[in-house]
Order: sequence, then C-alpha cells, then structure tokens
Amino acid sequence: MAKTTTLKEFESVFPKLEEALLEYAEAYKLPEQMLSWYKKSLEINTLGGKCNRGMSVPDSASILLGRPLTEEEYFQAATLGWMTELLQAFFLVSDDIMDSSITRRGKPCWYRQEGVGMVAINDAFMLESAIYTLLKKYFRSHPRYVDFLELFHEVTFQTEMGQLCDLLTAPEDKVDLDNFSMDKYTFIVIYKTAYYSFYLPVALAMYMLDIATPENLKQAEDILIPLGEYFQVQDDYLDNFGLPEHIGKIGTDIQDNKCSWLVNKALSIVTPEQRKTLEENYGRKDKAKEAVIKQLYDDLKLEDHYKQYEEERVGEIRKMIDAIDESKGLKKQVFEAFLGKIYKRSK
Amino acid sequence: MAKTTTLKEFESVFPKLEEALLEYAEAYKLPEQMLSWYKKSLEINTLGGKCNRGMSVPDSASILLGRPLTEEEYFQAATLGWMTELLQAFFLVSDDIMDSSITRRGKPCWYRQEGVGMVAINDAFMLESAIYTLLKKYFRSHPRYVDFLELFHEVTFQTEMGQLCDLLTAPEDKVDLDNFSMDKYTFIVIYKTAYYSFYLPVALAMYMLDIATPENLKQAEDILIPLGEYFQVQDDYLDNFGLPEHIGKIGTDIQDNKCSWLVNKALSIVTPEQRKTLEENYGRKDKAKEAVIKQLYDDLKLEDHYKQYEEERVGEIRKMIDAIDESKGLKKQVFEAFLGKIYKRSK
Repeated sequence: MAKTTTLKEFESVFPKLEEALLEYAEAYKLPEQMLSWYKKSLEINTLGGKCNRGMSVPDSASILLGRPLTEEEYFQAATLGWMTELLQAFFLVSDDIMDSSITRRGKPCWYRQEGVGMVAINDAFMLESAIYTLLKKYFRSHPRYVDFLELFHEVTFQTEMGQLCDLLTAPEDKVDLDNFSMDKYTFIVIYKTAYYSFYLPVALAMYMLDIATPENLKQAEDILIPLGEYFQVQDDYLDNFGLPEHIGKIGTDIQDNKCSWLVNKALSIVTPEQRKTLEENYGRKDKAKEAVIKQLYDDLKLEDHYKQYEEERVGEIRKMIDAIDESKGLKKQVFEAFLGKIYKRSK
Repeated sequence: MAKTTTLKEFESVFPKLEEALLEYAEAYKLPEQMLSWYKKSLEINTLGGKCNRGMSVPDSASILLGRPLTEEEYFQAATLGWMTELLQAFFLVSDDIMDSSITRRGKPCWYRQEGVGMVAINDAFMLESAIYTLLKKYFRSHPRYVDFLELFHEVTFQTEMGQLCDLLTAPEDKVDLDNFSMDKYTFIVIYKTAYYSFYLPVALAMYMLDIATPENLKQAEDILIPLGEYFQVQDDYLDNFGLPEHIGKIGTDIQDNKCSWLVNKALSIVTPEQRKTLEENYGRKDKAKEAVIKQLYDDLKLEDHYKQYEEERVGEIRKMIDAIDESKGLKKQVFEAFLGKIYKRSK
C-alpha cells in the first residue's frame, strides 16, 4: 500500500539539501558574509509554505510503486520535491517584485525585507541554480538525468511564458478589459501554474522510477493540465467567494486588476450596461468600487456558474482518469489523490 | 590556418537562431502580443554589443582545428557563441535593474524603456531559457550534450555568486571601505566576469570539438581565469585613466562606489590621512569629491602601479601559455589570441 508523506517528514529532508548547497558554494570560496546571505535566502524563500507541490513527488512515487518508499527512495523523491519548491521559490521571489506584492506567507516579501531590495533578483537566480546543483549531486548517475534537466528547463520556460502573458494582459496600473479573454486566461493558467504545480511533480516521480514512457507522460499531462486549470479557476473563485477564515487571506483580485476566471466569465455574459459597470469599477484600489463588482458578480450568479463549471470539469477529469491505461506502470490513483485534495476544497 | 570571424559574419547567424526561438514559443501557442514582446527583448538585449565573447567561440574552434571552419562547423560554433551572448544578456538586463543603471550600449536600459519596467526581470529569465532551447535543438545528439548543460549551469552559478559578492560589498548607497579588500575584489572579478567571459567560450569550443579532456579544461581554466582577472583590472584602470574618446564612455566607478582595482590598490598603500580623504570622498554623487579621489589616485601613482601589475601579470600568463601541453589537442595560440587582443588595449 502507498503511504502519504507529512509536512514534518518532508521538511526533515531540507537541512541535508541545504547543507549540500552551502558546501557547494563554500567549495568556490564564497566569502562568509555571502554564504550567510545565501543560507538566509534559501530558508526564508523555500521554507514556510504548505509544500503541496513538493510532497506530491514522494506521494506519487509511493502510489506508483504500490508500497511505502524505502528510506533511500524517500530521500530521492523528497529531493526532487524540494527542487519543485526551489523552482517555485525562484518564481515567487521574482513575481513578488514584478507584482509589487507586499506580503508572502504572512511576512514581508523577500525584496521588502531589511537590506534586501533588488538583490532579491540575484537571489531568485541562485534559487533556480540550486535545482541544478542538487540534480548534479544526487541524480548525475540516474538513467534519466538528461530528462530531469530538460524537464526543468521546459517547465521553467513554460512558466515564464505564462508569467509574460499574465504581466502583459493585466498590468496592475492600466485597466483594459478588452485585453482579457477566456483564451488568454486559459493560456496563463496552464503555463503559469498547471505545468509546474501539477505536471512537474508527477513527471519527476515517473522519471525517478523510470516508468516515464512517452505514452505515460502524455496520459499524465492530459489529465494534470486540466486538473491544474480547474485548481486555478477554483482559486480565483475562492478569492471572492471563499471565507477569509478558510483561505487565510482577504481576496484582492478585483482591486489588483487580475485576469481572473470570475471577471472573464462575467465579461462573457454581461449586458452592455453591466459591462460599463465592470469597466468603471474593476481594478481600482477602492473599497467602494470593489463592492460594486462584488454585487455584480452576485447579480450575474457567478457562484452558480462556477459550481456548474466545477461539476462539468470534474466529471470530464474523472472520465479521463477512468480511461487511463495502467499497463505500463501508471496508476489511476495518482490522479485520484490529486483530485481528492482539490475537489470542493474551501481553502 | 585558422581564420578569425568578423562581427558581420557572426551576426548573420542570429536571425536563424531567433527564428528557432520564436518557433519554439509559437509551438506553445504563445499569443501574438507576447511573441512580439519576446522577439523585441531578444533583439534589443542580445544584439548591438561587440560580441567579443561570442565570436571567441568560432575563433577558438578554428585555431584548435588549425583551419577555417566549414559552414556547418561555423554555424555550430557561432550558435554556441550566441549562447554566451544570451547568458550575458540575461545578466546585463538584470544587473542594470540591480545597479539602477541608466543606459546600456548608448540606449536606455531595457527596464527603463517605454512600458517595460519590472517585466524585464521575466524577460531576463526568458533570455536564459533561450540558451537551453538552442542547446536542445542543435546539440541534443552531440556526444558532449550533458557537459554543455552542466557547463552553462556551473558558469551561471559562478556569475551569480560573483554578482552577490559585488552587490553586498559595494552597495551603491552605503560607502564602507572596510568592506573592500583585494581578496573580495579578486573573488568578484573571477566569478562575475572571468568565468563567463573567458573560460566559457573556450570550454565550449573544446567541448564542441570533443577535445575537452579534464587536463585540457584545467589548462584552459588555469590561464583564462588570470587572463580574465587582468582584463577586468585593466577595465577598472581605463575607467579612470582611459580616454573617454577611446573607451566610449565617461568613467563613473568612483561616484558609483565600485569595488574597483584602483580603490583597493589605493587602500593597500594609503597613509592614515589619505585613507581619511578616501573615506570622505569615495562613492559620492559629487563631481568635486570625485576630483579629490582622482587627485589622490595621481598622488598615489596608481597609473605606475597598474603598469607594473600589467607587466608582471602578462609575464606570468605568457609563461603559462609557453608551458601548455599541446599533445592532447589544445593550442597555445588560443590563449595568445586572447592576450593579443587585451594587452595594452586602450578601449
């Protein structure tokens, strides 16, 4: 039987990886002051999250093997998991600068911390580099080493394309709803989120166990990308309709001019008059205007639209999971586990 | 006989690589607006430089083969050369943000161009990703493909460490000469500049021709790193003592609080009184204070000190070149060509 990992277990692997990364920098004689800086950046930017992406590597590996992982297997899978967390850290540190964000995980964003500023850009680069340092140290003799490298390169580029599309479609300071569309929304969500959050961890587990045939990878991608899309639509829905005490924050998508599922859905069903209301009130740093949009979302019954979308989407995904060919080592349960964690979540 | 490339010849390869990069992004269905943005970023940030780094790949390859390159060999070598230019573009776009630079190659820095701003951070990432897209497209079946990947990862990380050390040692807004030292200077110069500018192009040429034995790589590194160090010391010297009409800019290292060879040399020979002058006038955005430092540099005879350094260093490098073992395919001439371009340059 498979076994799911806990955050504590997963986090217990980090110190060893951190040590390896610091030793690597030390071998280049990086001066003490810079070494401490790198250590601090690694810890503040990589730790403290829920690690859902990272933990899904050992979880998927255990399901694929149909048994708990050995200690060595767990270390390998968790190391790959931490690489996905490093990739995310690289993106979040830089996204926060690009989005002028204020806080991250309840603390000031890294670039806003005392004495950091734009050095954070280089810190982001070093978080990305850490992935390849770890890959080289722990996977150089793995038969799929080149695939690991190429997978990280590809997913990195996909995420960068998604981020570019997001930045150009929804600049914080210029509201232009003509720029929004469900097509662009879908592109952003798939590339900016779904590949690195859903496809990457499962593909890593498959490569690790050397069952990543082109067919298996294709099956995984075909399910995980719609799943990731559904996850982000749900995230956008919760930003407005979720309870702050559940989601742990107060949604700001409306004021931040986000190219959210809700505004795109609204745009597709509004009357010309309601469209005017959207134009005049969306994306403004103004509580009253935000309230107008919230009222419009209610008038448009966006909650119902979302629930209909959710049921349809989940139905389709379930069908795809049922149709999976398990003959080459893939398991339906990998995807059922993801879906189980997401479906009807409130946080 | 070897043949040296011209900028025109080298630049003629770029359009094909650009097309390959755009096609790759197009295959992901990147929307038109974002595709044009990527194209513009690629052109503005990669083109327009002297391409010394990039051109040294085909030049070194031709010397190593002892004959002009065939058309196919030239394309391969120039493609690797353009990857070093992409790596540099990735660094320059982000360094300019971190250093609050104003102009680059006579134009506003990319992040200061109309409508760009912090999107430039993501553009820098995409320039880096372009390296791996090209490597995969043109070198996937090369016997040294993995070495190419690892070399770029390693040199990227080395440059990031150099940049971190530079940023923390010489923040633009906080003058603290206690923070400077020749040791830190050497670290910054070697990692921030020498590896990617000197070692990388030659190592790429050696991998391309599959003569990159550990011995040959070590010999190349042992010469190219001191050569790169000398190059940067010379750059620092020219910033103050060079003629603006030769170097094409007016030096700003003193006002910018740069951890330059000159200030480190000065610090190592000043009297306590002169040290006070340094403390009070270095790193200020003030013409008069800059003039005080320039006078101090003259009083300290830094020009003579530089010339002595240059002769010593070049003597050592010449000796190392003479001692090269050419039995495994390496050629002294590779390094003589570099030295010839650098020694006593005035621009």
